[in-house]
Amino acid sequence: MRYLERPSPLSKITDLLSQIRPIEDVLTIPTWDAAGFVAARDVVMPHDYPPRPRAAYDGYAVNSAETPGEFVVVGSILVGQYREARVGRGEAYYVTVGAFLPEGADAVVPEEAARREGDRISVSRKYNAYDNVDPPGAYAPKGAVLVKKGQVLTVFDVVALLDVGVTKVRAYRRPKIAIFSTGDELIKPPIDPDEAAELVLRGKVIESTGSLVEWYIRNYMPYVEIADRRVMGDDNEALKKAVEEALQKVDAVIVTGGAGPSEIDHFYKLGFAGIRGFRMKPGRPTSVAVVNGKVVFGLSGYPISALHGTIRIVEPVMRKMANVVAGPGNGWVYATLAADVTGELAQFVRAKAEYKDGEIVATPLRTKHHSFTDPDASGVLLIPPGGAKRGDKVLMLLYRDPRDMGRWFA
Amino acid sequence: MRYLERPSPLSKITDLLSQIRPIEDVLTIPTWDAAGFVAARDVVMPHDYPPRPRAAYDGYAVNSAETPGEFVVVGSILVGQYREARVGRGEAYYVTVGAFLPEGADAVVPEEAARREGDRISVSRKYNAYDNVDPPGAYAPKGAVLVKKGQVLTVFDVVALLDVGVTKVRAYRRPKIAIFSTGDELIKPPIDPDEAAELVLRGKVIESTGSLVEWYIRNYMPYVEIADRRVMGDDNEALKKAVEEALQKVDAVIVTGGAGPSEIDHFYKLGFAGIRGFRMKPGRPTSVAVVNGKVVFGLSGYPISALHGTIRIVEPVMRKMANVVAGPGNGWVYATLAADVTGELAQFVRAKAEYKDGEIVATPLRTKHHSFTDPDASGVLLIPPGGAKRGDKVLMLLYRDPRDMGRWFA
Repeated sequence: MRYLERPSPLSKITDLLSQIRPIEDVLTIPTWDAAGFVAARDVVMPHDYPPRPRAAYDGYAVNSAETPGEFVVVGSILVGQYREARVGRGEAYYVTVGAFLPEGADAVVPEEAARREGDRISVSRKYNAYDNVDPPGAYAPKGAVLVKKGQVLTVFDVVALLDVGVTKVRAYRRPKIAIFSTGDELIKPPIDPDEAAELVLRGKVIESTGSLVEWYIRNYMPYVEIADRRVMGDDNEALKKAVEEALQKVDAVIVTGGAGPSEIDHFYKLGFAGIRGFRMKPGRPTSVAVVNGKVVFGLSGYPISALHGTIRIVEPVMRKMANVVAGPGNGWVYATLAADVTGELAQFVRAKAEYKDGEIVATPLRTKHHSFTDPDASGVLLIPPGGAKRGDKVLMLLYRDPRDMGRWFA
Repeated sequence: MRYLERPSPLSKITDLLSQIRPIEDVLTIPTWDAAGFVAARDVVMPHDYPPRPRAAYDGYAVNSAETPGEFVVVGSILVGQYREARVGRGEAYYVTVGAFLPEGADAVVPEEAARREGDRISVSRKYNAYDNVDPPGAYAPKGAVLVKKGQVLTVFDVVALLDVGVTKVRAYRRPKIAIFSTGDELIKPPIDPDEAAELVLRGKVIESTGSLVEWYIRNYMPYVEIADRRVMGDDNEALKKAVEEALQKVDAVIVTGGAGPSEIDHFYKLGFAGIRGFRMKPGRPTSVAVVNGKVVFGLSGYPISALHGTIRIVEPVMRKMANVVAGPGNGWVYATLAADVTGELAQFVRAKAEYKDGEIVATPLRTKHHSFTDPDASGVLLIPPGGAKRGDKVLMLLYRDPRDMGRWFA
């Protein structure tokens, strides 16, 4: 399979996907290290959070039934303090945001709304149960699904899970990949910049294709672990040995360079059966072979062509191997609002994003608290002061992949 | 300035921007380390690249005037080899993609289009000058502007510059920032996950706000160097000392937590003059102060609120300080095509992106080569097989910020 006379359509990759073995190993990962991993089970709340009523404002914890009225401040509970305490009739505790309320209290009077003299406060209006309070389970009730199986955990998920006390998750082992950049012409930084420039003018090439592929994988495919990265020459035997050794340790190998049909190209000389050449431009010589359930990719030595091959071919194959159902997004996009968002203030609102006819349609999610715990949320909307209307375009910081991967090979 | 009775509108930040001292120090950075830095000068091509005609295809370098015809293959020049060579009448050199052509040759006959027997080839059709060849300066001619002053260098710029032999750039020193997460309630990973979960149920909080802010800065504000990151308690004196010491070494300090008006909040106790409280939700207590041209930010202790404050307040201030004119983008967006892109193959096409009425409008750039050297390019379009029409929505991988920052405070 030396020449590229009949490159395959991209849709051919779907045949190959059926030969890919998804990773089955499941690990327990501390949540703070879990960004980029793929949830192997639905992540379900093991308890209510907060486990008991929690102050949502700095002020005085009271029994709402006694408002309006006068109270004696008998103590204070600061966030992070855990204290067995209760308010008796006519008593209040000073609490700070996030503190658990003492027994008997069900509302918080904001500090600036109470008139205090010495250890006495006067509250001039009626408060209701749970005013300025997060009731038990308000952030997430026991049994709630926080992350769905197959979702790639993002930094937002990590924050949300830690917030409600979910400190470990069951995740698939990430497939390991090796990236071998090949070419006798390659020089590898760091070297003296002036010397490097001189070498480029004499025909050498500063290695950057592997760097670009690595950058894309780190940013858009964090569910893949880059286990090895080398810059090598064009020696076919050395490459063959390196690839075969790598396949003992990793799940996939990318070879950049040597993808063409020339005498010095080496990818075809590796002799792997697979698909060689796709109907794409640039990156026509992009190749892929399945070897005992593992995968070897051949990418162009040109950065832009290699990146195209990574996106079109490497990414869908590795998503399959990594068990990805919903990839990570990152980036600012303009989304079309599916509902009005009212309010005078500049707002930051979680939303569900859906792809519809080439637009990201964002449905704001109604959450009164500060957490992110909603597996349907896929980003945060930046709403200008004064609010925004249904149909308006607003900026959205996405943390799930906005792309319609279902149409990937169309 | 303890209470937050009259938070400022976001537009108030523009007053403060006038007090910010932009960084003036300019450094020379090797290009391979330059991603995230802001260009302090236009980056201008010091030479033509390629410096001489270069093969764009594997095959035989010939004098096009002699085609069709028969040639003797007198040698080979592989990519990366620099060789004083010339073709005489009836002679050809075997060349691989990227190799500089020998003197006297001006076209490449693709390997598979020539009939070879022994050291002789037969070329059956006419080739023109520069067929399958990149002429001198084709990637970038001497004097071309590759990156504009004020643009944040992205990984794409790095690849483009290295490709054409620009191995160092003049860039502004990046402003340094320290991130201090405060709160007696904070626990800092790594610790035993089960113990951490238990502590959360007793009111403790696993530090994640600082992590989220750091993540945003690393991904969306790489022009800022994170020089210090700490988790501290609520001790006001210790914090004051830490902030004052930090301001000797860094250009800005972020304090997360303690931003409210309660007795245990400490940001207002630092006593810096500035803007305290903004008309935004969440993150109302977000504060900012200018201290001798340096900046101290107070952010909420809640992750989502701190992130909102980072985007609304920290980012514009640091952009000003870092001399950013065009920020880095990253992420997949749907863009509206401003012109047809024809072709049967699946394509990957550089484009200029502009914001228009809440849409990203992408104008494909006509470049026949594989480089990215165009300061107007801001991303790469993924064109489906068969092409796409003007007005179609297509996926675009952006590397410049898609946001209309001119309307940031509207």
